[in-house]
Parts: sequence; C-alpha cells; structure tokens
Amino acid sequence: MTIAIVGIGLIGGSLAITLKENGFAQRIIGVDKNPDNIDKALRRRLIDDALPLAEAVAQADVVILATPVDVIVELAPRLLDLAEQQVIIEVGSTKTAVVEALRQHPRRGRFVAAHPMAGTEYSGPEAAVPNLFDGKCTVLCDTEHSDPDAVETAERLFHSIPMQVVYLDAAAHDVHTAYVSHISHISSFALALTVLAKEKDEDRIFELASGGFSSTVRLAKSSPDMWAPIFRQNRDNVLDVLDEHISQLSRFRSLLIKKDFSAFYQLMEEANAIRKIIS
Amino acid sequence: MTIAIVGIGLIGGSLAITLKENGFAQRIIGVDKNPDNIDKALRRRLIDDALPLAEAVAQADVVILATPVDVIVELAPRLLDLAEQQVIIEVGSTKTAVVEALRQHPRRGRFVAAHPMAGTEYSGPEAAVPNLFDGKCTVLCDTEHSDPDAVETAERLFHSIPMQVVYLDAAAHDVHTAYVSHISHISSFALALTVLAKEKDEDRIFELASGGFSSTVRLAKSSPDMWAPIFRQNRDNVLDVLDEHISQLSRFRSLLIKKDFSAFYQLMEEANAIRKIIS
Repeated sequence: MTIAIVGIGLIGGSLAITLKENGFAQRIIGVDKNPDNIDKALRRRLIDDALPLAEAVAQADVVILATPVDVIVELAPRLLDLAEQQVIIEVGSTKTAVVEALRQHPRRGRFVAAHPMAGTEYSGPEAAVPNLFDGKCTVLCDTEHSDPDAVETAERLFHSIPMQVVYLDAAAHDVHTAYVSHISHISSFALALTVLAKEKDEDRIFELASGGFSSTVRLAKSSPDMWAPIFRQNRDNVLDVLDEHISQLSRFRSLLIKKDFSAFYQLMEEANAIRKIIS
Repeated sequence: MTIAIVGIGLIGGSLAITLKENGFAQRIIGVDKNPDNIDKALRRRLIDDALPLAEAVAQADVVILATPVDVIVELAPRLLDLAEQQVIIEVGSTKTAVVEALRQHPRRGRFVAAHPMAGTEYSGPEAAVPNLFDGKCTVLCDTEHSDPDAVETAERLFHSIPMQVVYLDAAAHDVHTAYVSHISHISSFALALTVLAKEKDEDRIFELASGGFSSTVRLAKSSPDMWAPIFRQNRDNVLDVLDEHISQLSRFRSLLIKKDFSAFYQLMEEANAIRKIIS
C-alpha cells in the first residue's frame, strides 16, 4: 500500500516510521509546505519520496492528514476534491470543526476522522519516534458518515500498529479531549509562567526542580503553532474545563486560607481516586 | 558506619538501599512506629535489623529522620536529647518549622537539615527504589548552626550517592520548594478532581487519557499523610504561589473568553522558555 502523509511532524513522522516498519505501507510519500521538514524527513528516511499535494494524492491508496488542526480544516475539502478511491484519514486533536467543514462534501464518504491519542511535547520531523502509538487508543469519529470500506481501511491501519480503536461522535470527542488532554496543557503552560515569573527574582530556583516539577510542566514545551488552533477550535469545551479546574484550585486555596487542613486532607484523599485510572 | 533510619518509607527506604549498596553504611537499623513497615522493610532487606528509637540512636553513627514533616518536628528534639556524638540528619520537604523547633536546643550542632530533592507519587517501604536520588540535588539548610564535622558527614553521605549538594537558608528553601515542588502537587490534585468530577457523567472518559494527562496528574496519587503536614508547615509560601498560579490560569481564561488567540499564542510562547530549564 502507498501512503501519502501530509504534514511530516511528530505525528505524521511517527506514523510514517511505524507503518513502514510493520509492513502496512510499502511506500510513504511525504507532503509538507515547509522544505526544511521535507529535507529532514528524507534524511531521517521517514519518507521514501516527497511530492506536491495533488501528485501525492494521485499516487496514494491512503492519505493521512497530520497538520495542525487549522490547516486540517482548510486542506481536508481540497484533499476530498482530489480523491477518487483513496481514503483520507485526518489525525488532528479536535473533530467538530473538521466534520462540520465536510458535512456537505459530495465525497464525504472517503473521509475518516481519527485521533490517535499519543504525543510528546516535541514537534517537527526530528521529534518523530517509533512506538509512539503502541498500545494506545485511537478514536474514530462520526464513522456513519464514512464509507464502510474507508472505515475498515482506517481500522486495519490503526490495528496494525497495534492500537485499540474507540468510537465517539465528534462533539463527545471534543468534550473528552478537553478533559484528558487540552486542560493538562493549559495547566502546564500556566505552571511554567508561574515559576518563570518568580525566577526573575530568584535565579537559583531551578537547581531544585525535581521529577515532580518536570512531570507537571513538561507539556509547557509544546508548540504554540500546534496548540493555538486546538484551543481556538475547542474553545467552548476548554473554557468549561478551565473554569472547573480554577474552581478546584480555589477550594484548595480557601482551605489554606482557613487553615482547615483536615478538609484539605480529605480533598487530597478524594483526588487519590485517580489511582484507579492511571497506573 | 552504622546508620539508623527513622521512618522506613519511600525516602528512608530508598536511602537505606542506596547507602548499603554503595558501601557508605555497613549496617542499617530501621525504626518505625508502624510494625507493618518494619516487617516489609525486613522482608525486602532494606534494613539489617529493627530497634526501638533510643537503642537505635545509641548504636548508630548517623541517624536519618525520614518521617512526615509533622513527626520530624516532634521527633527531632527527642533525637537530639538522645544524641552524643551521633549526627542527626533530617530529610523532610520543609525546613523553617524544624529549625525553629531546635533553635534553643543545647545539642543543635549535631543536627543537619537536609532535603534530597527526589521522590515519586508512591509511599511506604514497598515504594523504596535504588537510584531514586542518583545525580539529583540535596539542599543543606542553615549549616552555620550545625557542627562542622556533622555537616561534613552529611556532605560525604550525599556525595556518596552521588548527589549534588546546594546550600540555602531554611526560609529560602521553603520559598523555592513551594515553587518547584509543592505547587505541582496542588495542581495535580486539582486536575484529578476536575476530571473525576466529569467522570460521574461520562464513564468512558478515561479510555482516552494519554501520556500528557498521566504526566500532569500522576502526583495526585501522592499520600495525604505525607503532604498535609507539608502544606500546613509551608502554608504561607504555598498560598503565594497558588495565588500566582490561579492568576496565570485566569489570564489564559480571559483570553479564551475574548477569543484573543494571538495573545494566547504569545503566552504559550513565553511559557516555552521553560525549555531552557527542564530538558
């Protein structure tokens, strides 16, 4: 099978490595508007060759669209215009905007909205790694609007990695990811700014940073080019979760103010229930 | 050298493994008011034997006090009452309260306040691991109040691991750790509660939890028994940092409300400066 990957960054590049290594793809064509990315992807052998968009689509069986989500919304209709029997799989972090943009498209059936739930705080082809997706979960959205053979191709692709496949409608997906991904990023960005602000007065502060700190702020290294469009598209859900998060923090704050450490203890104990979720 | 470790949990147990393995200690005596912990520590061979507090101190060259910080403040004066030439090293996460409690003690010189900056979200002797401290940083506080030979013994102990040793006064230590450790824990506890609250309505929400989510909430598994006393003792500093953190989150919130994604982008870019700090 020939796979064209549009956007050879962390996600597109990691899929390229994985699908070539496991034999799902015999040939990977790279498409990227940034010649630097193409150059790096060729040198790292993430892709077999690079082609302009239309030629890549013409030669591919499957096209994976792995750009930032604002570009996905812009390119998805153009890719469907070009598609004949190809399957176009989009792998962005938000879903409502892209399925809305394609709602009336005559070739909507060739399109599959997918979200492989994995990533790191790094970006670009240099950040691509094998095994990024192993054992993780991919969400397929609104599959009733995709042709059965297109869904089946997407399922085979993700199962080959291997990933577990889960089905949600686009709106539910965007709510869920606001909770289990997007808010974590805002929290990290804000924690980083909190500590960086203090660093202006205390230049030795980071000598003491330990594993717990790194763990909670590492997402603050994430690319604004990738994340600004996600927050724009999922703004309403993210705002709901952010309000809830600020209100939870305010509960801890008011217990500190009141020096009510027994209620503070109980809140921490409630939060410990997260143990049943993440191992 | 014989080392008595009072409190055989994550920190005490991990120090026991490390100092025995690297030859700094020939014998490790365990002291713990919880017979279960002693039993586990003996079965895991973290300690050579277990003794009551006074006997353990009498037979030791160095006593490491590794209980929760409220118990540290209570036990440190009693240990100093018992000490003759022994060095008493306390390894808690807060410093002002314990150095205050010992200010007038006639044997203050035998005491060293130390904070090896490492840990995990787990607790108890079963959580003890080798290599927990390798290459990390230990803070020694108010060393001018300790006897030079006591400081020198503590330095040799931490260098043997090996750890880097840094010197701060107790008040500065407590400000710094509020920023690079304590706030990360509150943030994680609050994030866990945010998502657990939503889970009541959406029972499949955690299927999608990925690495970024786990990374930002894993500290929410931390023990309230260990953390409530830390927040109690470092309440004023933690409250300052928490206020700053809530205000940083509110900046993101108000930009989302205004849909000002270009300012939102700039805030994320500022936060990216954390890259220079954590690799």
